[in-house]
Amino acid sequence: MIDFQTDPTRYRHWRLRVEPPIAYLDMDVDPDGGLHEGYEMKLNSYDLGVDIELADAVQRLRFEHPEVGAVIIGSLNERVFCAGANIGMLALAAHPLKVNFCKFTNETRNSIEDASANSGQRYIAAVKGNAAGGGYELVLATDHIMLVDDGSSSVALPEVPLLGVLPGTGGLTRLVDKRHVRRDRADVFCTVEEGIKGKRALEWRLVDELVPSSTFEETVRARAVEAAEATDRPTTAPGVELSPLQRVIDDAGLTYSSLRVEIDRAGRTATVVVLGPDGPPAEGAGFWPLRLARELDDALLHLRVNELEIGTLILRSQGDANLVERYDRLLVDQEGDWFRREVALYWKRLLKRVEATSRTTICLVEPGSCFLGFLAELILAADRSYMLEGTRDDGDDEAMVTLTGASAGPLPMANGLTRLETRFWGDAAGLEKATSVIGRHLDAAAAYDAGLVTDVMDEIDWDDELRVMLEERAGFSPDSLTGMEANLRFPGPETMETKIFGRLTAWQNWVFQRPNASGETGALRRYGTGLRPDYDQRRV
Amino acid sequence: MIDFQTDPTRYRHWRLRVEPPIAYLDMDVDPDGGLHEGYEMKLNSYDLGVDIELADAVQRLRFEHPEVGAVIIGSLNERVFCAGANIGMLALAAHPLKVNFCKFTNETRNSIEDASANSGQRYIAAVKGNAAGGGYELVLATDHIMLVDDGSSSVALPEVPLLGVLPGTGGLTRLVDKRHVRRDRADVFCTVEEGIKGKRALEWRLVDELVPSSTFEETVRARAVEAAEATDRPTTAPGVELSPLQRVIDDAGLTYSSLRVEIDRAGRTATVVVLGPDGPPAEGAGFWPLRLARELDDALLHLRVNELEIGTLILRSQGDANLVERYDRLLVDQEGDWFRREVALYWKRLLKRVEATSRTTICLVEPGSCFLGFLAELILAADRSYMLEGTRDDGDDEAMVTLTGASAGPLPMANGLTRLETRFWGDAAGLEKATSVIGRHLDAAAAYDAGLVTDVMDEIDWDDELRVMLEERAGFSPDSLTGMEANLRFPGPETMETKIFGRLTAWQNWVFQRPNASGETGALRRYGTGLRPDYDQRRV
Repeated sequence: MIDFQTDPTRYRHWRLRVEPPIAYLDMDVDPDGGLHEGYEMKLNSYDLGVDIELADAVQRLRFEHPEVGAVIIGSLNERVFCAGANIGMLALAAHPLKVNFCKFTNETRNSIEDASANSGQRYIAAVKGNAAGGGYELVLATDHIMLVDDGSSSVALPEVPLLGVLPGTGGLTRLVDKRHVRRDRADVFCTVEEGIKGKRALEWRLVDELVPSSTFEETVRARAVEAAEATDRPTTAPGVELSPLQRVIDDAGLTYSSLRVEIDRAGRTATVVVLGPDGPPAEGAGFWPLRLARELDDALLHLRVNELEIGTLILRSQGDANLVERYDRLLVDQEGDWFRREVALYWKRLLKRVEATSRTTICLVEPGSCFLGFLAELILAADRSYMLEGTRDDGDDEAMVTLTGASAGPLPMANGLTRLETRFWGDAAGLEKATSVIGRHLDAAAAYDAGLVTDVMDEIDWDDELRVMLEERAGFSPDSLTGMEANLRFPGPETMETKIFGRLTAWQNWVFQRPNASGETGALRRYGTGLRPDYDQRRV
Repeated sequence: MIDFQTDPTRYRHWRLRVEPPIAYLDMDVDPDGGLHEGYEMKLNSYDLGVDIELADAVQRLRFEHPEVGAVIIGSLNERVFCAGANIGMLALAAHPLKVNFCKFTNETRNSIEDASANSGQRYIAAVKGNAAGGGYELVLATDHIMLVDDGSSSVALPEVPLLGVLPGTGGLTRLVDKRHVRRDRADVFCTVEEGIKGKRALEWRLVDELVPSSTFEETVRARAVEAAEATDRPTTAPGVELSPLQRVIDDAGLTYSSLRVEIDRAGRTATVVVLGPDGPPAEGAGFWPLRLARELDDALLHLRVNELEIGTLILRSQGDANLVERYDRLLVDQEGDWFRREVALYWKRLLKRVEATSRTTICLVEPGSCFLGFLAELILAADRSYMLEGTRDDGDDEAMVTLTGASAGPLPMANGLTRLETRFWGDAAGLEKATSVIGRHLDAAAAYDAGLVTDVMDEIDWDDELRVMLEERAGFSPDSLTGMEANLRFPGPETMETKIFGRLTAWQNWVFQRPNASGETGALRRYGTGLRPDYDQRRV
């Protein structure tokens, strides 16, 4: 089992040092610390385990260190800043693991950009030595790339010439869309195995600043101090410690403080039940929306990598919508509070994670549920949603859906639109109608009328119709479902993020699957053997 | 060899009937007329050969029939409008053929939308019977979908439930991005094997109009007449017949009237030499830019499907730029002339075809070349471009590049931007500089300074450096090059077209490659055998 929970005391691959207003995050990969057997992580190359620590550090810096306004990503390896994803790992990994590895690393790099854009925590890359492949792609996620001008340090994307795969962790997209590297130069850069250094790296926009060796550390620090000066984070507020999750995992599923996951292996479904708050808002890590976000995030990641055959996630909720409303208001009207902002931003990222998860998501709105405000976004994030009309024998209150300001701005999707805007893309009348019900408690008929749920059924039909639908879904090709969902979830404009998950990831997955990469004589398998790969030369 | 040239006298699968201002284009697939052995094209199912005829008809309607303002796509099969791509063909086809088949059919559907949007020729679909899969995807490319309300006629995308692949000919994208079908309804629709008919099809926006059987023909005709009334095409101008191409194909390459393709199989390159005009503008099919466009189009398609191992296309030109300039002016300043508009629109589509071709494109600008105006777009369309500085012994004039108004609007890329806007995406200063040289004859230093060419070399280095570069390119994994180029060519915004070629096609290619579709027990291979596919249930 791959566990996504860690904390700085357990890091094997990163050194985190906080010197307010700066944090130093230095890569120092333990070659023997791989998640799996069979490969050694030399030269600061990495696997999913290394990235789990990075994601944890990025997250903790936001919550636990309001006083940090700039983060410097560096490396303790003087010769190789980071060699990118470990090739031995890639060659050994089954296709689903490779894909999940790339998805998670992409999400982590996106979270770095999100911290920088929205959380007042700017990232700076201090590159000494060679930043290659995934190493340079990590650097590309920062705001300001500083390269030491020592005649040898360089940046490189050697995936194509060396490995027969793509710079698939956002590299190709960020080169042309973020850094505005001219496409013909990007083409050249991506075929130069040894990379580009010095003035040319600067002229081609591959880095932002070239610094002599002798003044590197002090210049990097100075830039970080400048960046931190622009932050709107409070310098003296205490951080909120992300204390260990309360979690029990057994064969039947996962149990957290505010979340329950019930796994049905025969039916290939997991029912994810969000449990509403049990009291009025409390502070800190116990703040229910934060606790729930951390638990749902952990559950999603667990299901992604440890439960590969679970094809459908059924999203449910249980609780008191009136209590949810009190928390929701705190997230929508943040009143300049850094912590509430962080929690809302976390929900934004978490909902994006739901939509980037290659599982069918079905939201069930039933009596006793509490889909209000930010929780109601789960209805809109799902591939389909069904609502039970009326009540059931168990005496629970009739199901209601309540949209709030949470659906009108603070939680945009990866395409930059709200879920309502996406749902009613090109349908102004539909959007207006759905927007007009914000603030109203909607029963099944009203929610259907507003276009918020796919269908409505009464108690008599509910169980049977859902059973048939879920069985049918489980009978379809998992691959075709993944492709279909990835295409239907993001109508409208594209952003760098959707391009990375749509265009770039789809092509990388295709390349990974091809014999030219993963076959016996493919580039990944032949790497390091001294043998050249043997390619099927047909262009597809 | 697959030949893309045909004409209505040779159609086996379509009936084209022109009754100005309307044309009727009826599908009537000959089951025994497949391009390859081993499958029968029952129920108006189709293969590449059927689509080659469709593309020819769409093209001829534009050039040969200025008097046609509306085209009705119908079917001579009363029960099945069109069953989509032939499954037997898909099951037998090697991966490169499947991919090229989808790409060409996508381009044809895009050309239908282009005719409608830009050429005053509106398309109407008259659906009787079941329009399924690729059949419905063809219908989705029209402006107005009319479905007969007979209690059984329906539209369907049964790829996921039936075949384990995607509606990959634009279907998923057009549902949500063009027709604004709500994403959860689109999800339902794509899993209902039998499709959706009647009122629900209308309510879900799957069709535009529901018409009783008894009045179907007359209502369709009335809509077409209405649509044709809005056209800006001349009703009395004579058409320009697309006479047979002058073409010789042998093992060394292809020879046309204005184009030469030299194939180097050992080096896996094809050199495409555009030959400038030999005189002042002549009218009709002999009009040099039209002749050249048809020849280059044919050559590209030929190389795509018949020369799979040719990885790099080297684009060159030879001729008198002053003569090119006289033609270029006619295309840029169309003065309301329908024919000049058609030729310019054809160049727009052709340049898009260059960019959608999964081969490395290198443009060489040498002494004696004539890269001016619309021909200079080839420099910008290429992955890289190199320019020779100075002259060579052979006495040809020094190479020059001249941008004209052709680079500033009439030939946008699939992303909706000009090639200059794309090249300098996010670089306002670079775009301004490049735009400022429009109209000037630029030598190598000036073209490099304006950011138009990747590099400049003199005669001494030229041959050797290019040889090394081409050899190096030929050594890379063809798949990684395809993926890299597809990601670098389209910075900036995305459109429905780029989403189809980027996101949707990439996922479809991935799905095609997976054992769940194409393996021994996959859905495509098991289709029609009575056996259920045996899926690897891991979600990726």
